Amino acid sequence: MNVTVIGLGLIGGSLAMALRGCPDIRITGVVRSEHTAQLAEERGVCDTVTRDPMAALADSDLVWLCMPPVAVLDFIKDHREDFRPGTLVTDVCGVKTAIMETAKVLPETVDFIGCHPMAGKETSKLENADAGLFQNAHFILTPGPDSTQEHIDLLEDLARYMGFRDTVLTTPEEHDAMIAYTSQVMHIMAAAVCDDPDLFLCSGFEGGSFRDCTRVAAMDVPLWTELFSLNAPALTKTISRLEDNLRSYRQVLEAGDTRKLAEKLTWSSDRKRRINLEHQRGDDAKLPPD
Amino acid sequence: MNVTVIGLGLIGGSLAMALRGCPDIRITGVVRSEHTAQLAEERGVCDTVTRDPMAALADSDLVWLCMPPVAVLDFIKDHREDFRPGTLVTDVCGVKTAIMETAKVLPETVDFIGCHPMAGKETSKLENADAGLFQNAHFILTPGPDSTQEHIDLLEDLARYMGFRDTVLTTPEEHDAMIAYTSQVMHIMAAAVCDDPDLFLCSGFEGGSFRDCTRVAAMDVPLWTELFSLNAPALTKTISRLEDNLRSYRQVLEAGDTRKLAEKLTWSSDRKRRINLEHQRGDDAKLPPD
Repeated sequence: MNVTVIGLGLIGGSLAMALRGCPDIRITGVVRSEHTAQLAEERGVCDTVTRDPMAALADSDLVWLCMPPVAVLDFIKDHREDFRPGTLVTDVCGVKTAIMETAKVLPETVDFIGCHPMAGKETSKLENADAGLFQNAHFILTPGPDSTQEHIDLLEDLARYMGFRDTVLTTPEEHDAMIAYTSQVMHIMAAAVCDDPDLFLCSGFEGGSFRDCTRVAAMDVPLWTELFSLNAPALTKTISRLEDNLRSYRQVLEAGDTRKLAEKLTWSSDRKRRINLEHQRGDDAKLPPD
Repeated sequence: MNVTVIGLGLIGGSLAMALRGCPDIRITGVVRSEHTAQLAEERGVCDTVTRDPMAALADSDLVWLCMPPVAVLDFIKDHREDFRPGTLVTDVCGVKTAIMETAKVLPETVDFIGCHPMAGKETSKLENADAGLFQNAHFILTPGPDSTQEHIDLLEDLARYMGFRDTVLTTPEEHDAMIAYTSQVMHIMAAAVCDDPDLFLCSGFEGGSFRDCTRVAAMDVPLWTELFSLNAPALTKTISRLEDNLRSYRQVLEAGDTRKLAEKLTWSSDRKRRINLEHQRGDDAKLPPD
């Protein structure tokens, strides 16, 4: 089976590296820059590296679009007629509604299944790619209305080979609503904390919670600007709920209502302990960064 | 030198364990429950364990108050006349203004230096104590107006022995303002995220940033209720600034102003990268949880 990975950045590079050695698979990497092509060759990231997407598409059974969202949207539109009949096309974007909408332009002979590997780092580019990036992460799929079970099974098998924790099947809308909460608002919150004037005064006073909560503020700005913008309706609702919850703690503190504060914290910490148990699912597995 | 640790919970227990083997030091642990006394004996946490604080105080050179803030305030008031002349008294509380104010009731012959070891876990009690808890954490001191350099040096030496990264000298007011930002608001934020109705719908969509940002929501509620309440003026100001910063991101997203969003994220992520470099101070040290 010929797998073509378009874009060998952090995610595409890690994906190609994690797929290496998978039986009966030949991996072609498509890159734009000579620098990335050389680096991919040196590190043996793929079986073949090319700068010609057309040649690669003509020979692909599975095409994995590993670019930022807007580049993926453009690629689908520009190359809608260039995929071989029977090709399975997928992506890695952290938003799914916009991608699935645009994928409707593809001919019926092409099966597009949206994909979001829930892993990442605060660094980008092939230099930071890592075959172990997906260990224990969720692999989320949003199949199209005509996607075949065979193709879903294939992606699930590849995910298992790459070390993902599980495969989650969902709709683009549910994905985008959930991701606004579990990932996007975490990034906005981290940025909002770093916007505080005290940031450069706090050396010597920071502990683990500060490091953990602000880690993702050092984000890839062009990528996250696209992700936030393409999911603005769900994200703004989630931010608004967080503002309400924060205000509620502030007001209880301003009122000096210690009993109410303890009640609120008890409710909240009980919820956190319950969700820890659910997410643990009987093991002590650690989730990777995203 | 006789060191008495009052309260062998997570912090007091870890502190006694981290001090074990330190030359010329004899450690007495004071506990309230028979259960903790037995556990401390079994694990060899201290040289001696007693349930009688008066006997221990009569024989102490250094008394370390390792209880929650309100219990520390009560202990200082109740035992103001029971410390030997020349005793150095310190604590471990995450708020300092309230503690330092109350410590003024102590006789002039007693030197009270406020202390905040910036380390912790989401679990409490001696069962979870760990001699390695303080590795690479900040050790913050707020000396009184008449504290001696000798006593400050002594605490700094002990901190080094226990594995702390550095000792930070500050005022109670600066401590409380900084800690509202670096620690307390991180806990309020984590709680506010867990108050969201989507919490129990998001299984399968959570990644590293969600785990990292919500970790501290599973907090020791009685302890944090006291810490937040005793620092309410600084904390409410910090929450209010965070609400403003979040609202600002929401409004830019609602306006669909992608250029402005990218500008804001660039500013914020640059700040985060700069502070990473400052906090790194030339090593790749990882901060412990707090």
